[in-house]
Amino acid sequence: MKSIFKIQKLNSTTSARAGVVQTGHGEVETPFFMPVGTYGAVKTQSSEEIADLPSKILLGNTYHLFLRPGTEILQQAGGLHGFMNWDGAILTDSGGFQIFSLEGFRKITDDGVTFQSHLDGSKHHFTPERIVDIQRIIGSDFMMMLDVCPPGDADNKVWMDALKQTTAWAKRGMEHYRNSEPIYGYHQILLPIVQGGTNSEMRKQSADELVELNAEAYAIGGLAVGEPKPKMLDTVQLMDECLPKEKPRYLMGVGTPADLVRNVARGVDMFDCVMPTRNARNGQLFTANGKINIRNAKFKNDFNCIDDSGISPMSKIYTKSYLHHLFKTEEILGYRIATQQNLKFYVWLMNKMRKEILNESFEKWANDFLMCYEGEKL
Amino acid sequence: MKSIFKIQKLNSTTSARAGVVQTGHGEVETPFFMPVGTYGAVKTQSSEEIADLPSKILLGNTYHLFLRPGTEILQQAGGLHGFMNWDGAILTDSGGFQIFSLEGFRKITDDGVTFQSHLDGSKHHFTPERIVDIQRIIGSDFMMMLDVCPPGDADNKVWMDALKQTTAWAKRGMEHYRNSEPIYGYHQILLPIVQGGTNSEMRKQSADELVELNAEAYAIGGLAVGEPKPKMLDTVQLMDECLPKEKPRYLMGVGTPADLVRNVARGVDMFDCVMPTRNARNGQLFTANGKINIRNAKFKNDFNCIDDSGISPMSKIYTKSYLHHLFKTEEILGYRIATQQNLKFYVWLMNKMRKEILNESFEKWANDFLMCYEGEKL
Repeated sequence: MKSIFKIQKLNSTTSARAGVVQTGHGEVETPFFMPVGTYGAVKTQSSEEIADLPSKILLGNTYHLFLRPGTEILQQAGGLHGFMNWDGAILTDSGGFQIFSLEGFRKITDDGVTFQSHLDGSKHHFTPERIVDIQRIIGSDFMMMLDVCPPGDADNKVWMDALKQTTAWAKRGMEHYRNSEPIYGYHQILLPIVQGGTNSEMRKQSADELVELNAEAYAIGGLAVGEPKPKMLDTVQLMDECLPKEKPRYLMGVGTPADLVRNVARGVDMFDCVMPTRNARNGQLFTANGKINIRNAKFKNDFNCIDDSGISPMSKIYTKSYLHHLFKTEEILGYRIATQQNLKFYVWLMNKMRKEILNESFEKWANDFLMCYEGEKL
Repeated sequence: MKSIFKIQKLNSTTSARAGVVQTGHGEVETPFFMPVGTYGAVKTQSSEEIADLPSKILLGNTYHLFLRPGTEILQQAGGLHGFMNWDGAILTDSGGFQIFSLEGFRKITDDGVTFQSHLDGSKHHFTPERIVDIQRIIGSDFMMMLDVCPPGDADNKVWMDALKQTTAWAKRGMEHYRNSEPIYGYHQILLPIVQGGTNSEMRKQSADELVELNAEAYAIGGLAVGEPKPKMLDTVQLMDECLPKEKPRYLMGVGTPADLVRNVARGVDMFDCVMPTRNARNGQLFTANGKINIRNAKFKNDFNCIDDSGISPMSKIYTKSYLHHLFKTEEILGYRIATQQNLKFYVWLMNKMRKEILNESFEKWANDFLMCYEGEKL
């Protein structure tokens, strides 16, 4: 099969790379960030606004979409793309993380996981095969394997069990995937998820076992779950060595702007995180000059525009004082303006890194950015 | 002083009229509807989106803006227009209605009204003069008098007291207005508010007393507060006879699409109502074919677009099924789509009426519309 990934530039001093991934809905340039649209909508934003970030890909969640609107509606709609009027690419997380982190009963067996809906307590059973089938119905361009995702403070025994189960499920998921067809006529990519916490032996074992499956792309899971930041970076560094260079790597659920820069330098191509959207709704804005919280009283009479960089159009025409007022009065427009600012900034940051990589100036730029942003280098 | 209002067409079979009002922020064609932006933002919508309805005017609320962000911030911002980045016209309600309808202590004396903020219980005192001063600071193109607004089920004694106080305050407000200057260099119009409930004698008295003030435009208050619909229509009909034909009439807080049509036929030029925006957030959509509630289970798998009329762009590209899902999952995008639909429809309806008036076809069109919309004529 023809490779889905073309590397355009390997940075000579870090592991950063710039490339292009071919998806069922067009090419997506790497490295990229995926705005999170759990239920088939990026919170407060329309699909046109996501395209306009500009983003060619967004993320949905299999667990949540399975519960609402459900596979019957999604199948009738011809998949999530048509349902939400989005013609870019979609990656769906498998829901493993949600099943293991949301409240409610769950029970893992070799067969799969039985869990209760966090909405109405109804019981459901996911197997590695069924998770592929559901994502076939959703029509995701990138489908994720069902994995076991322990909390960040779990002990090695728990991580080892999770790793073994994740590998076993990945084998079954991959086999089922290879014996099933896309419903909507375009190719869907299935990603195994490397587990193993921050233990390098286990991580290596997990990666080695999954590399055997010869998948088209790989995900690094089980990070950003409460472990110390240096351990996360060391783990990603190790993954850069263990995972095939010629395939895209997706670091799940990461992270801050500085995290994005540090992990691009460690060879990651794909990211997602709720931070820009969730924090926006709490008033936290990311800008090229650092973070601010617009709820802070000092912005009450700050009549400068929210961000004069021009990265976000709304941030150029509205003032900090007005946005502060919108948050005080809980006006939805405030959440929209803040969300647009953060997503525009994240997408801008990814495109900036891509340019710097292509330009052979990534490491210097990254160190300058990080020093300015939080006073520490790569 | 040159008249602010130019009538372009008087309908020959009803009291409907089409005209143009000259404001401090450009001409606004009548009849028109003002989207409600209580705190300086129309809920869920940006000011560009309001301009794009297309609307050349929106409404703010003096009481609410006085409490948040407060006059100090608004004055520093150079008024509400700059604060919210809106270069169309603004009408601000005086806050009389809010003071008399929101929870909390209030006491009316001849001097004015003392009330407690519904937010923090802090005490404030509004006089007819102060309400003008505050609206000078806000920079409203249309300023409203402080009035006394009893509930719809009040008795005649209460309405008579309200009427007398409203007239006395209107005299003081008008005198203060004529002795004060706009802060930002453009003309501001001050509207007295006719009270008197649905009692025709009192209404006539109120109108006659206020007409003496020779204001540039008049508002009809104290309706849409729970009285029977025929009484509202009779009262507006009476106002059409009592108020000067050559001046714009503003019917406050009205109403449904059918109300707009019936009151345009009775000579009203200006409307505002929270209905399109508030009901949108409850899932009620107004379309040319009637109302629907998108939360209804029958829309779960209705893959037709929300409204194929093309009145609202979002309603043409998203399906009823998707909007139903967005409401089920409480996604803000759902409130945005529904709000845009309703505001676009209201503005479309006003423009449609204007065209029919100019075309001398208003009465026939209005009867057809009302028969289709709710099975009853003008």
